[in-house]
Amino acid sequence: LSPRTGRRPGNSDTRALILDAAASAFAELGYHAATIREVARRASVDPALVHHYFGNKEALFTTAMEIPVDPGLVVEQLVGEGTVDTLGERALRKILGVWEDESARAPMLAMIRGAVTSEQGARIMREFISEAIFGRVIGAIEAPDPELRAALIGSQLIGLAFMRFVVAVEPIASADHDALVEAVGPTLQRYLTGEVDSITVQHARMTT
Amino acid sequence: LSPRTGRRPGNSDTRALILDAAASAFAELGYHAATIREVARRASVDPALVHHYFGNKEALFTTAMEIPVDPGLVVEQLVGEGTVDTLGERALRKILGVWEDESARAPMLAMIRGAVTSEQGARIMREFISEAIFGRVIGAIEAPDPELRAALIGSQLIGLAFMRFVVAVEPIASADHDALVEAVGPTLQRYLTGEVDSITVQHARMTT
Repeated sequence: LSPRTGRRPGNSDTRALILDAAASAFAELGYHAATIREVARRASVDPALVHHYFGNKEALFTTAMEIPVDPGLVVEQLVGEGTVDTLGERALRKILGVWEDESARAPMLAMIRGAVTSEQGARIMREFISEAIFGRVIGAIEAPDPELRAALIGSQLIGLAFMRFVVAVEPIASADHDALVEAVGPTLQRYLTGEVDSITVQHARMTT
Repeated sequence: LSPRTGRRPGNSDTRALILDAAASAFAELGYHAATIREVARRASVDPALVHHYFGNKEALFTTAMEIPVDPGLVVEQLVGEGTVDTLGERALRKILGVWEDESARAPMLAMIRGAVTSEQGARIMREFISEAIFGRVIGAIEAPDPELRAALIGSQLIGLAFMRFVVAVEPIASADHDALVEAVGPTLQRYLTGEVDSITVQHARMTT
């Protein structure tokens, strides 16, 4: 039996130290400016050690924010597992499965809460979505206007999570996964591969 | 020239008194339990006077929450102005127009903020959506499963508002109305009149 108190192994201390530094860096600087180098500086360790423990910044962020799955990795898996014609449905089914676990959806709801209650929280979410999640999703979308498509998918997923878990409006709150996939899957599929009128949006981009 | 200080006319005092009572009643009791009678009791006026100043509870709520448009009335107008085939697009265009004014979208964002930061805020939003908004939308939808359709429309609209104004993710944040109507209008139209698989959802309702 190991003693319940006492020093943890050195590498565990270092890992915890880096996570604390990462959490404070993301909170103060946002996702973009909180570099691996800055986190290492705050933890007084070598940047190589941060890479050693956590890989890249995206993985460091998901661990520090206690996000149970790496959204970028999930996108890569989904793209590898089947054709793009079924990607909307498969992605939604996967996401509903992750959300089923309350501890797994808590970080997402915390990020939504942070975004509506402070500009800094909104900035962290905006930068994380734009740099980490959209980067992977956009790489997987071969249709025109990948940024718009990724943002539309995000809008429907956040709204669905909001209605299902935050406001808990029926019948969305209690609907089973099959029902939600039948109802919302085609929306995501159209945003991924359907017509979303690229010309008008490019015009909008130029004039704003 | 009228004096800048001094007593306001009596009816204006009464109206303000009722609004204060309504705001506290909605905050403490939620939308459902805060009846016109309860608001009248708190304001020490006759319930008929509350009806006289504000009409029904929905209108009292939208005024107390400083919501600039009565969502139920907007739904009625939209249904009356054209065919159901174009309702998704027309509704989205109307909503985007309302949101354009920062003071008009502030109450909606305040309601979203209240819902994510407290269970009471979530309850007020849930009851208001279910009783006031959905009641009108559901009355306008002749397809099966009107509750599911109304909740799906709500999910896409809240998610769109969240991405456009709270997180401000591009290109949704700066897209013009035409671009958003082209991209999201068909989603709302499908939720209004398309196939959303009623059988599976009815099954889900029975088993939960």
